[in-house]
Amino acid sequence: MLEEKQTNQSYETLEPLFNPRSVAILGASGNKNKLGNLQVKALLDGQFTGEIYPINSNSTEIEGLTCYKSIVDIPNEVDLAIFCIGSAQVQKGLEECARKKVKAAVIFAAGFSETGDEGVKQENVLREIARENGIRLIGPNCVGLVNLSNGLIGTFSPAILSVPLNEQKGVGYVSQSGAFGVLTFMAAAQNGLSFNSFVSVGNEMETEFADIIEYMIHDPKIKVISGYLEGAKKPEILRGLAKEALDKKKPIIVMKTGRSLAGSKAAASHTGSLAGSDKIYDAFFKQTGIIRADDYEDIISFSKLFLSNKLPNGRNTVIITSSGGRGINEADRCESYGLKIIQLSKQTMTEIKRTMPNFASVSNPIDLTAAASVSNPELFIAPLRALVEDPDVDNIIFTEFPHNWSAEHPLLLEFIDICSRSNKFIFITTFPLEGMSLPPGTTELVQNGIPVIPGHLNPIRGFAKLVEYSEYYRKTQLEKTVESSRKIQKQSLQNLLQPGTTLSELQASEILDRYHIPTTKRLLAVSAVEAIHHANHIGYPVVLKIDSSDIPHKTEAGAIRLNIKNDQEVREAFLEINRNVLNYKSDAKVNGISVQEMLPVGVEVIIGANNDPVFGPVIMFGLGGIFVEIYKDISFRVAPLTREDAKSMIEEIKGIEILKGSRGKASVNIESIIDVLVNVSDLVTDHSDSIEELDINPLIVYEDGIKAADAMLVVANKVKEKTTIS
Amino acid sequence: MLEEKQTNQSYETLEPLFNPRSVAILGASGNKNKLGNLQVKALLDGQFTGEIYPINSNSTEIEGLTCYKSIVDIPNEVDLAIFCIGSAQVQKGLEECARKKVKAAVIFAAGFSETGDEGVKQENVLREIARENGIRLIGPNCVGLVNLSNGLIGTFSPAILSVPLNEQKGVGYVSQSGAFGVLTFMAAAQNGLSFNSFVSVGNEMETEFADIIEYMIHDPKIKVISGYLEGAKKPEILRGLAKEALDKKKPIIVMKTGRSLAGSKAAASHTGSLAGSDKIYDAFFKQTGIIRADDYEDIISFSKLFLSNKLPNGRNTVIITSSGGRGINEADRCESYGLKIIQLSKQTMTEIKRTMPNFASVSNPIDLTAAASVSNPELFIAPLRALVEDPDVDNIIFTEFPHNWSAEHPLLLEFIDICSRSNKFIFITTFPLEGMSLPPGTTELVQNGIPVIPGHLNPIRGFAKLVEYSEYYRKTQLEKTVESSRKIQKQSLQNLLQPGTTLSELQASEILDRYHIPTTKRLLAVSAVEAIHHANHIGYPVVLKIDSSDIPHKTEAGAIRLNIKNDQEVREAFLEINRNVLNYKSDAKVNGISVQEMLPVGVEVIIGANNDPVFGPVIMFGLGGIFVEIYKDISFRVAPLTREDAKSMIEEIKGIEILKGSRGKASVNIESIIDVLVNVSDLVTDHSDSIEELDINPLIVYEDGIKAADAMLVVANKVKEKTTIS
Repeated sequence: MLEEKQTNQSYETLEPLFNPRSVAILGASGNKNKLGNLQVKALLDGQFTGEIYPINSNSTEIEGLTCYKSIVDIPNEVDLAIFCIGSAQVQKGLEECARKKVKAAVIFAAGFSETGDEGVKQENVLREIARENGIRLIGPNCVGLVNLSNGLIGTFSPAILSVPLNEQKGVGYVSQSGAFGVLTFMAAAQNGLSFNSFVSVGNEMETEFADIIEYMIHDPKIKVISGYLEGAKKPEILRGLAKEALDKKKPIIVMKTGRSLAGSKAAASHTGSLAGSDKIYDAFFKQTGIIRADDYEDIISFSKLFLSNKLPNGRNTVIITSSGGRGINEADRCESYGLKIIQLSKQTMTEIKRTMPNFASVSNPIDLTAAASVSNPELFIAPLRALVEDPDVDNIIFTEFPHNWSAEHPLLLEFIDICSRSNKFIFITTFPLEGMSLPPGTTELVQNGIPVIPGHLNPIRGFAKLVEYSEYYRKTQLEKTVESSRKIQKQSLQNLLQPGTTLSELQASEILDRYHIPTTKRLLAVSAVEAIHHANHIGYPVVLKIDSSDIPHKTEAGAIRLNIKNDQEVREAFLEINRNVLNYKSDAKVNGISVQEMLPVGVEVIIGANNDPVFGPVIMFGLGGIFVEIYKDISFRVAPLTREDAKSMIEEIKGIEILKGSRGKASVNIESIIDVLVNVSDLVTDHSDSIEELDINPLIVYEDGIKAADAMLVVANKVKEKTTIS
Repeated sequence: MLEEKQTNQSYETLEPLFNPRSVAILGASGNKNKLGNLQVKALLDGQFTGEIYPINSNSTEIEGLTCYKSIVDIPNEVDLAIFCIGSAQVQKGLEECARKKVKAAVIFAAGFSETGDEGVKQENVLREIARENGIRLIGPNCVGLVNLSNGLIGTFSPAILSVPLNEQKGVGYVSQSGAFGVLTFMAAAQNGLSFNSFVSVGNEMETEFADIIEYMIHDPKIKVISGYLEGAKKPEILRGLAKEALDKKKPIIVMKTGRSLAGSKAAASHTGSLAGSDKIYDAFFKQTGIIRADDYEDIISFSKLFLSNKLPNGRNTVIITSSGGRGINEADRCESYGLKIIQLSKQTMTEIKRTMPNFASVSNPIDLTAAASVSNPELFIAPLRALVEDPDVDNIIFTEFPHNWSAEHPLLLEFIDICSRSNKFIFITTFPLEGMSLPPGTTELVQNGIPVIPGHLNPIRGFAKLVEYSEYYRKTQLEKTVESSRKIQKQSLQNLLQPGTTLSELQASEILDRYHIPTTKRLLAVSAVEAIHHANHIGYPVVLKIDSSDIPHKTEAGAIRLNIKNDQEVREAFLEINRNVLNYKSDAKVNGISVQEMLPVGVEVIIGANNDPVFGPVIMFGLGGIFVEIYKDISFRVAPLTREDAKSMIEEIKGIEILKGSRGKASVNIESIIDVLVNVSDLVTDHSDSIEELDINPLIVYEDGIKAADAMLVVANKVKEKTTIS
């Protein structure tokens, strides 16, 4: 219930946190070594635009500011309270804030839920106080927040003020790790990008990661939202926010760590055992358009590229270099990140050659040679004129730039003019050495939409992510291809989904039928005579299998016979299977023997679903057998799936070539796989409180259709409670 | 012939290049903007320990040094001449050097072989002059060389002198790219690693990349050899040198670029079409123990780690951090590079907990929390005491280090003492921000074998490469497992390898037989009666196939019949195949119909060989069909193979699980695959002048043996000349 309440809180209530008119510092101090002093000085040094009220019962003045004995003594309203006090004093402080009708608070102190049960209880009490009194709260166990637009340096980390804070802006940043947050904030600033706002969410006791994202979506000063994430608490909320951000063309770029710490839950299904939590995150990011940063450098370079206000039109890339080695190295990077180093057209080559000395190499990378850097900087312009006219070229990357073009240099102005008129994505990366990063005209270049990215930030990787964002944005926003996929109403399966059971194939098939997932024709027989009757009804050849959830491994038990061709063989098989089962497991609960049509040979695939504790139902797709087990050639998406999601998860596997028809075979019906994926997604979404795992294995695909040949379904022990803790 | 002569030149003749007693600068100048001035000043600023003789026909003094009109006017001996003159003057200059009996020269000028045929001719003339007069020569088209031990700054690039040159030493560096060479040299120096010597080899007209490697192997001051490579000219020489370096425990770490620019030669065999040149380089590096750097950072961090004089004992790694986020991020990196973040043993956990406050997290990563950095640096020692006693721990990585431990701080000394007594590999990586890189005790730590690597260099990746080197070194040097694998003498195949032909299966099989590669029993029949006779001799069931090199696709032509069970079926099949072949290709040259034993079902693999223009014969291994075509699950090695090479190329493919027996099946005979790989290697090595391509596909492996079921062999048009150009 608490969780529900929080979710309904509007992002506007976070306003006093980001833009307080007044800040009180609980635990302010005159002692230069104390956190409470560092915080007061940070606000002063940051030139905070609102009122600052130090609170300390033993002082009357701190750093030249009037000090109050208690927050309730302050004569004016207080929007934000920053707690520079130990964990034991926090509750008392918060109660005073409530009395003072403070609207927001930041708690630095550690020693709460991260230390165990006692801490969890304390947080529950604090959260209750905050909610009852409408106080929005950051922390505890955090490094605070920064808002550069009003000088709110709400953090005790003095390092924040040691970096430039008035460079390029437009980025918001939220972090689940304090130290990593500070690292990224500072690294960005050292590379000419000042984050508008930075929030360290700490234990997320009241305000969570997603809440900050939501605020930033509505902050018009923020063009790019970025974050450091260890675990999403409410992915479904993040999913909705991602859609909202995409509609506003505000990319969300997230560095997610903990790749190696995959969940180790034992699972009966393929999906369960193959879905490490990191693979699900990957899937989740793919289907929401959230960009996954590999490291903090990506956040910086992606943001700088995006702030140029252009989106790349494609992957065709040309590199212009004045060092052959740098050119080849950057070309290697481009290709390894999926960009295409194109062959220049004959016309463009001729055009370029006309204006270049013959020692330069006119291929791609175009090598202007050291002469361009040292003595002939006009060479940097020569190939550009031809390239901007070439419709095959999407992107032009300079691996160096003249260091002797001042801000007013006519060649720089000409360079900017050519770039500004072009719809190509053009950017400059510099030599990755200290002191050699930025050419003199950088400000002018950047202001005119030509990003200049220090080479040590791996800008090619960041650029590849921008290309991916651009493609996703165009697909979903411009082409509007994503639409509701649901064709089937929710079906009641109450009597079929008995808690704590593993369903027999026949029972599972009945459920698949309800969600229009084609299964084999099958009828249950309890006598040989009945089996013969069913076989004639279905038509020979048939398969006989035991129907018992106690015997999951039918081949091992001798409980399956394939390719049965006549009545006599049915009779023999029926008796043999019964005999084998009795020998194999005499106490097995047997429903009878299932008589099924014998499916012709097709391409075998697997579709599975697994109820993830964080993400809820997750869908898996892959080719059967060895391809799943050894090559791990599988894809995941978080349910519910759109048809686009389903299509992209099929296209993602390498084995797509087999489905499309390799070695002279025709393509199988891929639309029918999409149908099954979407229907499975609807089934497990509708019944996420009871379906724990589902494996359709094999699902056989033909040129003209599809059929589930076997299925396994595990029902949860009890109706799942909605889990909200990662 | 020229090439031969060069190869025989001893590395000692390079001595005057690295350690000249005197240097003459052709084209020296008093004009501060000229290269000839920059070079003179570089030698002066570098405090070159030998004589410096500027040469300029118009000056008597340059930068305070006596200037000579010509090199022949110098009264003393000249060891090294540096050419700061244009390409047109180079030949005259070199002739004068020859007259003066100069021993070595460096030529900066571009405009030679890189510009086309005319330049190639000019280089041939220059090379001839150099060799006739015993002049060792670097360049042309290079940035020169540096030797820090005598202040020889033999380069016009003034940036070299802007970085610290007296830091940690022990590394030699040779580069095929001038700019990338300078970048790496400077980046290393900025990060506290001064390369002893650096050579930019330019066009490698006379002295080549491998020659410099050889010199460095014999230079006792050099502990690590590093390089930037675009294309190896003589891989066989590099292979020999790699072995020599390994024996001396001198790692060679090479950054190879041009991954994306794979050769595009059309090829009939699988091996030919799958072997991009980059994959062969990968294979070559693996089998020679050369470490492949992914970027220049690897060279720096690997060297710093190696210079500690310890080798890691294994992959089991523990991370100690004071920031949860940094710890997780570095753990992710460790696992992605193949290191193992182990679970701590109960005993070690208990031991650590005893000495730690309870807010610290005692799992792996061990999170000391911000308290350790800010107020309790003694926490950095507490877990170390327990970890060095734990036999399961191989490596301990600190992601930060106290900034308040001065060089004489007792805790630092204690830290160093614990580390020095331990055989664990322990190193420190720092926060990757400008100005936060190195803790105060860095010098003492490094001197005591505890590397401190700035975090922005991706030290985990460099460390993973050190672990690989360590494993390779132990395997080859300590266990001495690599030995000659050859069991078969070279066989004469003169009459079988007709130039320009593609051999029929029967002809190819005959060659395989000679190299003890098991093939199916087979006999050629020219009549149905003969075929029946052969079938009875071989034993039913049999296979009938056309034997004709004009019909490579037998199934398509209807020229193969499987599973023939009796005389009558042989007769029918014989006639049918003849009929089909006539319809399919009436002018096909047919040798007859091959009667073969019908092989039972086994696991199908492919072994291929391809004659690479750079590397010579290259061997490929993979599973058959889809696994090769779609999953590219293949491995390569450059011939000749040792048994170890063969074993490692089998173990490298993912499908090894299938060979080892998956899903309840027994393992196939892997030793028999090794036999075939080694024998194929011997075959194609012995006949590398004529065998162009070989595909054994499928090669069928059983629990107790192996048999080639089909083979294809292409003979080169004419006997190949030894190619030495990449």
